[in-house]
Amino acid sequence: MINQQLNENQQDINEGDISQDRYGDVTLIQQQQKTNRFWIKVCEINESLLGKTILVRARIHNSRIKGKIAFLILRENQSTIQAVLTKGEQTSSQMIKYIGKITLESIVDIEAVVFQPNIQIKYCTQKMELHIKTIRVISRSISKLPIQIEEASKRDVDYFYNLEQQKQKENQQENTVIQDIQEYQLSQNQRLNNRVLDLRTPAKQAIFRVKSGIALLFRQFLIEKGFIEIHTPKLLGFKTKNSYSNFNLQYFNQQAFLSQSSYIYKQLSIMADFERVFEVSPVFKAIHGNTYRELCEFICMDLEMVIKEHYTELLDLTEELFLFILKGIEKRFGQEIQIISQQFQFEPIKISQPIIKLTFQDGIKLLQEFDILQSPQYYLTISNQKQLGKLVKDKYGTDFFIMYRLPKEDQPYYVMPCKMDPNFTLSYRFFLRGEEIASGHQKIHDSEILINQIKAIGQDAQLLEDYISFFKFGTFPHGGCAFGLERFLYLYFDLKNIRNASMFPRDSSRLFP
Amino acid sequence: MINQQLNENQQDINEGDISQDRYGDVTLIQQQQKTNRFWIKVCEINESLLGKTILVRARIHNSRIKGKIAFLILRENQSTIQAVLTKGEQTSSQMIKYIGKITLESIVDIEAVVFQPNIQIKYCTQKMELHIKTIRVISRSISKLPIQIEEASKRDVDYFYNLEQQKQKENQQENTVIQDIQEYQLSQNQRLNNRVLDLRTPAKQAIFRVKSGIALLFRQFLIEKGFIEIHTPKLLGFKTKNSYSNFNLQYFNQQAFLSQSSYIYKQLSIMADFERVFEVSPVFKAIHGNTYRELCEFICMDLEMVIKEHYTELLDLTEELFLFILKGIEKRFGQEIQIISQQFQFEPIKISQPIIKLTFQDGIKLLQEFDILQSPQYYLTISNQKQLGKLVKDKYGTDFFIMYRLPKEDQPYYVMPCKMDPNFTLSYRFFLRGEEIASGHQKIHDSEILINQIKAIGQDAQLLEDYISFFKFGTFPHGGCAFGLERFLYLYFDLKNIRNASMFPRDSSRLFP
Repeated sequence: MINQQLNENQQDINEGDISQDRYGDVTLIQQQQKTNRFWIKVCEINESLLGKTILVRARIHNSRIKGKIAFLILRENQSTIQAVLTKGEQTSSQMIKYIGKITLESIVDIEAVVFQPNIQIKYCTQKMELHIKTIRVISRSISKLPIQIEEASKRDVDYFYNLEQQKQKENQQENTVIQDIQEYQLSQNQRLNNRVLDLRTPAKQAIFRVKSGIALLFRQFLIEKGFIEIHTPKLLGFKTKNSYSNFNLQYFNQQAFLSQSSYIYKQLSIMADFERVFEVSPVFKAIHGNTYRELCEFICMDLEMVIKEHYTELLDLTEELFLFILKGIEKRFGQEIQIISQQFQFEPIKISQPIIKLTFQDGIKLLQEFDILQSPQYYLTISNQKQLGKLVKDKYGTDFFIMYRLPKEDQPYYVMPCKMDPNFTLSYRFFLRGEEIASGHQKIHDSEILINQIKAIGQDAQLLEDYISFFKFGTFPHGGCAFGLERFLYLYFDLKNIRNASMFPRDSSRLFP
Repeated sequence: MINQQLNENQQDINEGDISQDRYGDVTLIQQQQKTNRFWIKVCEINESLLGKTILVRARIHNSRIKGKIAFLILRENQSTIQAVLTKGEQTSSQMIKYIGKITLESIVDIEAVVFQPNIQIKYCTQKMELHIKTIRVISRSISKLPIQIEEASKRDVDYFYNLEQQKQKENQQENTVIQDIQEYQLSQNQRLNNRVLDLRTPAKQAIFRVKSGIALLFRQFLIEKGFIEIHTPKLLGFKTKNSYSNFNLQYFNQQAFLSQSSYIYKQLSIMADFERVFEVSPVFKAIHGNTYRELCEFICMDLEMVIKEHYTELLDLTEELFLFILKGIEKRFGQEIQIISQQFQFEPIKISQPIIKLTFQDGIKLLQEFDILQSPQYYLTISNQKQLGKLVKDKYGTDFFIMYRLPKEDQPYYVMPCKMDPNFTLSYRFFLRGEEIASGHQKIHDSEILINQIKAIGQDAQLLEDYISFFKFGTFPHGGCAFGLERFLYLYFDLKNIRNASMFPRDSSRLFP
């Protein structure tokens, strides 16, 4: 069946043509031969190759026929280059016509000579020009693309963000600016429904390369600090958080839940003498209603470690980790940062040294000073957090700060209370651009106290008691911290919507693609 | 409440005691002070510290009082050391008594002087001896442990493996050997029910350190080859394999399935121009009935890449990857291999160079030669695979070989057929000790052919068609390969039961811990 996939299109065009050996569609079966040819990457084409004949495999990003000349823009990942072919003694009009008919986003093999163009090419990343010798189509795209790559690459204003801005503008009775933006604005749903195309845009290419890099930097730092990577189950027999946001399923003859947090398994690993552990894994949260800052499935970068005597051992390590990742991004992904900034306007992150550290009460005081809060609180709303972020930025000139000694009311039952005042806990949060990017704490390691705590808050102790029984076999004092990977990207690049930081995001209305 | 946790035990004993400042239980609240003391690791205690006073935090692995002397064996991870205290002018009998009462597996802080012992200590990893100056209990274990660490550390004969052997023996009417082994044999369930204790044994400590290392080596190799790490969803709107082994759940108002394989998302990433991608993530399989070689949740190490012209590009890369991991394990984990071999007797892996590569048909012929198969087959049973492994070992002296060009019947619909004979495919499997450890193939990248294939095998095309529509936007020829991480460990160390390679294994009857 596949053997019969000869391309009729090619046969029709080629007949009696001086250029007939220089173009055509490659069949599937022709793609199974070893020729040991060498393909050069578009990003590698520069002056050093002038005059040389090279072979490139790339997409047709753009094409036009102007008189006797075919102009192509070839794209490979984030790199683009112009390729041209002129009708002449060796080149038939059929070949020009064939090129003109190749649909955008098709993949071609091109043999070409590298030239210095007469006029500087501004719209391509590569400054050289290719003069085509042969062209073969490896895979044809359909002609009607649901979204255009060029359109999807334009400056992004987020859908939800947009709505919010629009509401504000409507109140001010000034609609003009927003309408201008929306004219060329693809909706988030258009993008996500056609995610494969949307991901081909330079900014998305860059975002997910940085994402890979962040997880790598996280691992690299921790492995150097003596941590090992663990893999804990996502199918659980109990709810990790006693809330409504659990996915549950039938697990043979039992009820199972999808993990919302690895915390108990990180703790069991510590009790099993693995001293310092980390995990990078998906977690699942049944969040009803879609917001711009939450996903139903995301990657949690989690660590847990033995604490010898004070939880600042943990806090200092995670602070160092965070700064290591930030420096690593800047160092390794300069080009990607540049590309992302073209689509998502963001201000570079400013961090004051030494890092600003506020107690929870300091934060409340600051909000009271500026009349944002009237009375002391034991909880900060998302909106309060953002306002605090702005105040801290104004006062200290930093986008990043640490808030520590959080109220007991705001923390889970298992967080260690403070020595001085048990209304507060040995806990902290990292804030970036006014949103939480990580949270950490020392945990109670005494089983009796734990069980009392559970009973005190009225949580169903039975569910957890079997786990807490493992604490009875001698437990190291310990604590941990967790970063959301998508949240990290979303806040670092100010992507406005966290879906921009997930290749195939999941929310309450989206399971596809 | 926590402030009142003063230890009464300590107060009773200490009264009027010359050693009273040198021992006692540390309360939770005392564990919140910063003293900037320095704890040395047990594994680091050697001759260089002779005569020095050091501070150690470790578990009581063993203890006995012999006359006026208290002997302790302290354990930290895989390392052990002897610590002693003798009654004398500075040391009261109360202090000796206190030490004698500390339960096994409790965690203590010990200040001690490092000595060279008079007699060589054979039962500890460290050859030095500690003379105790002070001892503080950080966390007490209950006295009745459900399983003993020493018992759990003994030579392991697996439960299922055991049963199998026993059956064989029963047929031979020779039960004696097996009974001897079972006398001191903990069942797999006893171990798993008390996993936190079982994981404290030296072999388990080593296994999970190697596990962390394998995933790291996998990443390291691929990142150097230009791959990026991706994170694809585990909550899916369709079944990745059209079989009964899907976990499903209610996802808001939709039906969702847990991913059994990332293959479609790896492919979409290739279509989204991420050229070379990998993922290390959990996958889920509802396997009814428990076998020694399968888990319901395991870690898949997955890669997918653009193929320029021939699937041997993929095969060669994964072969190199596999050998890189093997070499890396040997190089980095010499001590761990040694420790694991003490509990799980395994023969070191032998690999002939160049790697033995057989076509599927070569394999069948070999089995026919030895009368194991009578007629040609298009599928090898587990038992056939093991027999083939033995034949290959006998003939070529290798525990590892590659079988390629697998029959179409044995491969999913999306695997690319061979040019020469479409009854076979561009696919391969790696075999280690007669079991599959990885499988790879080039995939069909033409949407029309794919849809025809699906229809030909009668699979519900509708479920997949939305995904296959993404293939219409120009698709690079590509292929991929997947390793099971637990399977890797299980076969490498010949662990007999794959549960030994999962910290908290999941099977059809186990969701706890």
